[in-house]
Parts: sequence; C-alpha cells; structure tokens
Amino acid sequence: MLKIGLDAMGGDFAPEAAVKGAVMALNELGADSHIVLFGDEAQIKAILAAENCNSDKIEIVHTTEVIEMGDHPAKAFQQKPNSSITVGFGYLAKGLIHGFASAGSTGAMMVGSMFAVKPIEGVIRPTISTVVPNIKGEPLMLLDVGLNVDCKPEVLCQYGLIGSIFAESALGIKNPRVALLNIGEEEAKGNAQSQAAYALMKAEAEKGKFNFVGNVESSYMFTGKIADVVVCDGFVGNTILKMVEGFYQINTRMGLTNPFWAAMNYENVGGTPVLGVNAPVTIGHGKSTPLAIKNMILSTERTISSNVTSKMQEAFKA
Amino acid sequence: MLKIGLDAMGGDFAPEAAVKGAVMALNELGADSHIVLFGDEAQIKAILAAENCNSDKIEIVHTTEVIEMGDHPAKAFQQKPNSSITVGFGYLAKGLIHGFASAGSTGAMMVGSMFAVKPIEGVIRPTISTVVPNIKGEPLMLLDVGLNVDCKPEVLCQYGLIGSIFAESALGIKNPRVALLNIGEEEAKGNAQSQAAYALMKAEAEKGKFNFVGNVESSYMFTGKIADVVVCDGFVGNTILKMVEGFYQINTRMGLTNPFWAAMNYENVGGTPVLGVNAPVTIGHGKSTPLAIKNMILSTERTISSNVTSKMQEAFKA
Repeated sequence: MLKIGLDAMGGDFAPEAAVKGAVMALNELGADSHIVLFGDEAQIKAILAAENCNSDKIEIVHTTEVIEMGDHPAKAFQQKPNSSITVGFGYLAKGLIHGFASAGSTGAMMVGSMFAVKPIEGVIRPTISTVVPNIKGEPLMLLDVGLNVDCKPEVLCQYGLIGSIFAESALGIKNPRVALLNIGEEEAKGNAQSQAAYALMKAEAEKGKFNFVGNVESSYMFTGKIADVVVCDGFVGNTILKMVEGFYQINTRMGLTNPFWAAMNYENVGGTPVLGVNAPVTIGHGKSTPLAIKNMILSTERTISSNVTSKMQEAFKA
Repeated sequence: MLKIGLDAMGGDFAPEAAVKGAVMALNELGADSHIVLFGDEAQIKAILAAENCNSDKIEIVHTTEVIEMGDHPAKAFQQKPNSSITVGFGYLAKGLIHGFASAGSTGAMMVGSMFAVKPIEGVIRPTISTVVPNIKGEPLMLLDVGLNVDCKPEVLCQYGLIGSIFAESALGIKNPRVALLNIGEEEAKGNAQSQAAYALMKAEAEKGKFNFVGNVESSYMFTGKIADVVVCDGFVGNTILKMVEGFYQINTRMGLTNPFWAAMNYENVGGTPVLGVNAPVTIGHGKSTPLAIKNMILSTERTISSNVTSKMQEAFKA
C-alpha cells in the first residue's frame, strides 16, 4: 500500500481546502493508494461528512497543534511536536507514510525535509523545483526555484543529475535534455557561476551521468526545442517563476487566455517537489484551493510510485 | 543644432534599414535636430534617392570600412579606423555629434563607449538598460540588462542613481521610484548580493540621492504599482529581458496580442541606452527594421536633449 501524507491544517484555506482536495483526489488515485490526513480529527470528519465522503482510502492522524505562517519555522517545528507538520514528518521518517505534502509553512516543511528526513548522502544542497508545461504541452522542469539563492557551481551541477533523475522517473521523459540557464548559447557565455557550472556539467555528461545539452536562454525555455530540465540558481529560478506568475496574472486580467497560459496557474502545477532528500516531500502554494491540493496529492503519488528517492540515493552513492 | 549620429552600416539589414529608418525619423525629429549618417556615401545616397529624400537634415560622413559581426570587437575597433563605428565614436568624442546609435556590433559599440567616450568619473561600471511600458502604458526602466553579469553591491547601488537620473530626465518621471529586483518584498530577503545592495541603496536614499522604494518581485514589475526603475545584475536582467522576448514571441504566435504585448516588440523599444559614459550611446537589435531604427534615433534624440549625460556627470561629482 502506498500512503500519501497530507497536512490537513496547512494553507490559507485549511482545513476545508485540504480535505476537499483529498476527496477530489480519490477518483484519480491508484488502486493501492491511501491518503493520510494529519490534523484535527473532528474538523476533518466534519468536512468529510459534509462532502458525503466515507472512503476507507482516507485515514486520519489526529494532531492538536498548527504551525502558523508567523511562527519561526525551526523553533515551531520543535516547540510544536503535536503540529500536523511535525507529526507528518515523524511518520515520513519512520516510513509510516511514503510521501508528505503541505500548503502550510514553507519554512517548516524545509526544516522537516532537512532535519527529519535529511538530505541524501552526497547531495550538497537539496533543491525545490517546478514542473510546468512548455508550448507543446510537454513537461518542463526548472530547478532551483528559490531554496538556494547563492549556488556554488558544484551545486548547480548536481541539480543537473537530480533534475535528470526526476524527469526520467516521475515525468517519464527518456534521457531528458538537461540545460544550464544562461544569457547566451555559447559555452563561454554567462557570469562566473554559470561558466564554472557549464564546465562541471559538461564533464559529468562525458562520464554519462546525464544528458547535458549546454546553455538555454530564457527566451527559448518554453519552446520545448532545447531542454526538458533547466538548471539555475534559486535567485534566478525564483525570478523566472515569479515572472511566469506575473504574466499569467496580467494575461488573465487582459483576457488573453489559452491552454498554455491556463497550465501556468499554480492550481494546476501540483506543488513544488523538494528533491535531494530521503523521501518525497511536496510544498504547495499558501493560497492552495481544493484543485491545487488535489494536483499536489497526485504529483506526490507520482513521485512516490516512480521511486525517485531510491534512484537518487543510488545515483549519489556512485 | 542637435546632431544625432547613426551608423548606416550597422545591423543585419544595413544600409537599407538604417537609411530608411533615418528617413522615417525625419517627420518626428525636433526642428533643430539633424541626423548624421556614417557609412558608404554612394550606397546611402542611392537609398535616399530611392526614398525620394533630399532633406538637408540628413548629413553623410563617408566611411570605407565596416566592423562585421564576426570581427573581434576591440581589435576591429582599432584595426578598422575608417569603419562607421570607429569614425562615429571619433565624432562623438570630439563633440561633432551629440549622440551615436547603431544596430551593428554590440561589442564594438561597447568598446567605443568605454574607450572613446569613456565612463563618467565616479561610475564604477557603466550599464545598458531597457525601457518598456508597464501594463498602464507608463515607462518601466530595467538595468543592467546584460553588460555586467557579476555585479558588486556598490555597482547595483550606483545603478539606482543612474536609473533615477535617466527616468527623471529622459522619461519625464518625477521623483522616480527605484526598486531592487529581489525574490521577496522584505528587506532581509534575497541572496548575499541583493541583501548588501539593499543596505547601500537604503543609505543612499536616506542621503536624498534617489527615491528607493525597496524590493520588487518580478511578478509585480510590470504592474506599475511599485517601481519606475528596477535594478538588478546583468545576468538576471538579461534573463528577464529574454523571458519578455520569449513570451512576446509565444503570445504573438498563439494569436494573443494586445497593446501591452505589442509594446514589448523590440522594434518599438527604441534600442538600449548605454548609461554612465560621457555621451549618449544607443545600441539597437541586430535585426533592426526601419521602424526599430526610427525609434532608436528618436530615443537617442530624447536622451541628448534631456541632458542626461551632464546630469550624471554632476551627480557623480558630488
């Protein structure tokens, strides 16, 4: 049985949005998958009753505390041992659930990822990533999108391998094309960081570690012609992600909509996988709606069932 | 008399596009403005004749060489002393023209800017910028957009002042709001570079140097609600610019067009001002059409007539 943990208390519209999202996910889950909700049992049961849901595929682990957005993430993680996030990570670390997702405190989710499930041995810095469709409707993976804002070239190079494994396993892209985000196509382009990262990634590619296709400029990212996985530091990745969000908002308000832009809506994105740690963790947008939660559950299920974690553990052992 | 120098031999479609652009600009130029074309006199005259143009507001300086895109910029600038770009910068340095624009070799234009007209005393690193409209149709200035890809915080801070002077003088924005591009709104957000730059910009603002409004996230850049001038390093700025170009292309191909996106077309942008050097210099897109050249001439005229250079010289003297 595959157990997907969900923080029922996380997000601006919790617990309603979280529980409703779990109910929505039921129809699309694998036959062997269960959702484990961490949160206030009475509240959760009331929402499930209102939704006429009594599926045995939803389990509840009762928790009595909530890490609030204003809390200091590291302190709250320790000082609220009965919080939905802290208990959830306890279950994840013990293997009682196989992945954990939350639209709650990003900071607390990162604390749990780093200190409860811990980085994979050999990974210098774990990363958060985003998967959005390119103009052909194929998945495009971008990492890092905000965790590591001052990346050493060695860290960027590892993101190439991490992204490659995720794209192949969880996104089903065979021999994914990994590119370095840069401001020119040629090898010598870029800043000190990207020039050094290019050399390292090229060397890894020559050892057969991943399929490095060179630089990609942001103008070509979404064409699908160059790369499936785009590597950059967290400052640049977060800036790119926020530009996409900004233009999605602008286009929507201006009535310029189509399937490409609709797919950029965070509700459809399925959350942000934390990669390079010893278990699947997904962080959702604080404003997550039931639809966003549903997609986050399904993307977490996909990450679990594709054995991304063990593949990364194996790759970094070598 | 105000003399705007134009490299007639620069750009993929030169000299036709350049000369036709100059002819197009005539109608919109100030009464006191002349265009000085640097290039092959016979070719230029043939194009002017074909355009039925015999305006005395167009002057020609005959040159016999052209710096090609494949040439090494610094070497070619010296080894082709009769090239349109080298001769143009000679005229600019001597004050025989008051500004110089080209859609030719960006590298050679930068060599001319740095070695013929030279950085303004006190400016650590000159910069290239872009002005595009926000969703309200007001000008938004972004700098640096690709010249300095590894910026020290001190350089970013100076860009605040440079951008503020340009926006106030050339764009007519009173007390322009200068923001630092960052990945969060709060002061403590960002990477090491942006955190240090924030502190320096705040200190300059407290001295009354410019109107620093804090951080702006890329998602809010184009709303017009936060900033008129956005400062970032050249790697990030170039990435932003190329994302805008990429989305312009994608939207256009998908039939999602409106005035906001149409304004993002480089043809309407009017070239890239080089700022922080001792004379107005504008660099155009290699693919510049006559329309793009026309807008580049007009934006160069605006930079000249607003005395941006002397205002910057004055500001950096203090």
